[in-house]
Amino acid sequence: MNTTALERLRARVERHGPLCVGIDPHPDALPEGLPRDVRGVETLARGLLEIAIEEAAAIKVNLAFFEAFGSAGWAALERLRDATPGDLPFIADAKRGDIGTTAERYADALLGHLAADGVTVSPYLGADGVAPFVAYEDRIVYVLARTSNPSAGTLQDRLVGDAPLHEAVASWVAGAWPDPRVGLVVGATAPAELERLRQLVPATPFLVPGVGAQGGDMRAAARYCAAATAPGVVNVSRTIAAASDGADWQAAARRVAAEIGERLREAAGATLDRRA
Amino acid sequence: MNTTALERLRARVERHGPLCVGIDPHPDALPEGLPRDVRGVETLARGLLEIAIEEAAAIKVNLAFFEAFGSAGWAALERLRDATPGDLPFIADAKRGDIGTTAERYADALLGHLAADGVTVSPYLGADGVAPFVAYEDRIVYVLARTSNPSAGTLQDRLVGDAPLHEAVASWVAGAWPDPRVGLVVGATAPAELERLRQLVPATPFLVPGVGAQGGDMRAAARYCAAATAPGVVNVSRTIAAASDGADWQAAARRVAAEIGERLREAAGATLDRRA
Repeated sequence: MNTTALERLRARVERHGPLCVGIDPHPDALPEGLPRDVRGVETLARGLLEIAIEEAAAIKVNLAFFEAFGSAGWAALERLRDATPGDLPFIADAKRGDIGTTAERYADALLGHLAADGVTVSPYLGADGVAPFVAYEDRIVYVLARTSNPSAGTLQDRLVGDAPLHEAVASWVAGAWPDPRVGLVVGATAPAELERLRQLVPATPFLVPGVGAQGGDMRAAARYCAAATAPGVVNVSRTIAAASDGADWQAAARRVAAEIGERLREAAGATLDRRA
Repeated sequence: MNTTALERLRARVERHGPLCVGIDPHPDALPEGLPRDVRGVETLARGLLEIAIEEAAAIKVNLAFFEAFGSAGWAALERLRDATPGDLPFIADAKRGDIGTTAERYADALLGHLAADGVTVSPYLGADGVAPFVAYEDRIVYVLARTSNPSAGTLQDRLVGDAPLHEAVASWVAGAWPDPRVGLVVGATAPAELERLRQLVPATPFLVPGVGAQGGDMRAAARYCAAATAPGVVNVSRTIAAASDGADWQAAARRVAAEIGERLREAAGATLDRRA
């Protein structure tokens, strides 16, 4: 590849819209016919990859669901990476966050060894925990700002001065790395926070999880992703992966992915039209 | 084992003092004679384990340094776990932090599959990111409060109300899980913050990194670890692992570990004497 991850993501978003297919298969939630072990997890992951190749801007692979099987899970993850075409950005959702020398090794693991195009990282350690990932110059880094889970606000909404912590994170990240390949994770389950963050850091790309099973606002997610100058993505995992728990799971997942992709393109397109 | 991880840790701290041997081997910093690859990393790790069995309360294994080699690194990590005697607590320094269902899979990875006795986790996601680890009832969980790295303060020292964020984290963790097996990571590089946190949450056990190569205050680390009712540990990594870069590395590391162990016991003992 002579292009950067950002260029590849931009090309895919222009063609497919902002849909990012999340891959986080739990062995207890696999469709009929798949073994409830690492082989079943890998089969579902490969099936979702095939769908993403046709329907999505990117895939977001949640490392926990592979790490749960230890070395066997990592081997499946490596095969999934090898099977991913070069033009489809592979985002390693790892949320690592550690001190400098350790963060370098995590960057080597995820951006070196695994050769991911993008990665999610935690802000809690400050720049030391983020910079080693940004140092991989042709990759994309998303720093957690406001996550999509119920207890996200415990720390992230604490007021520092007169703004919540997640806004302080967003301002810090946008100021420290004013670069279209350094973005933020902002959950769609908090649409007011999403809107406010979009205003606060208008150029910063967003990775927006929480749409679908988590109940997030799909239109808001697409709108605020499209509003940045850098390409943003909206992640959908379970709504696609669990479209059917029967033997027709891949066809059902493909149909749902296509429908969601279309809805996201419409919502993003409406935003882009207003800007034109 | 019919004992809990906390009971095993308490027994080892009573016998060996608070020294925790950190295992985070970088292939570029291996001693003479070891191959600069995953085999060399594993050899150094196994050598440090042998020392810890004789000299330390616990080992803290930094997952990044294994993950950097992908599935081969995880296989080495699994072998290291298998080689660790049941009475020596194995702390997986992973700093994972994710939403609930994902945090469950990380807990399954580290406390289930890898069968670690203890684990480090990030507070940024709130209770959702911590509770699945605490749900493993016989294990120890250390939540990051104030880390040892230079940029730790960027977020952790931000004032929320009139206290820095790391104190808010400590109060929240101590209040949510008032349990001697739920502790905090507090770096020795910030002795004033360490002292203040000790006063704020007097019963909560600490895992204190940053002593040695990172320049932290060893006496303060031992003192404030010993001051809790639950057993605390002081982690030392590079000062032991890099005691010699020659062929005598293991003998040198053993000698340094014994010396540091003695100094930590003295500092901790002085604290315990004052409490008696």
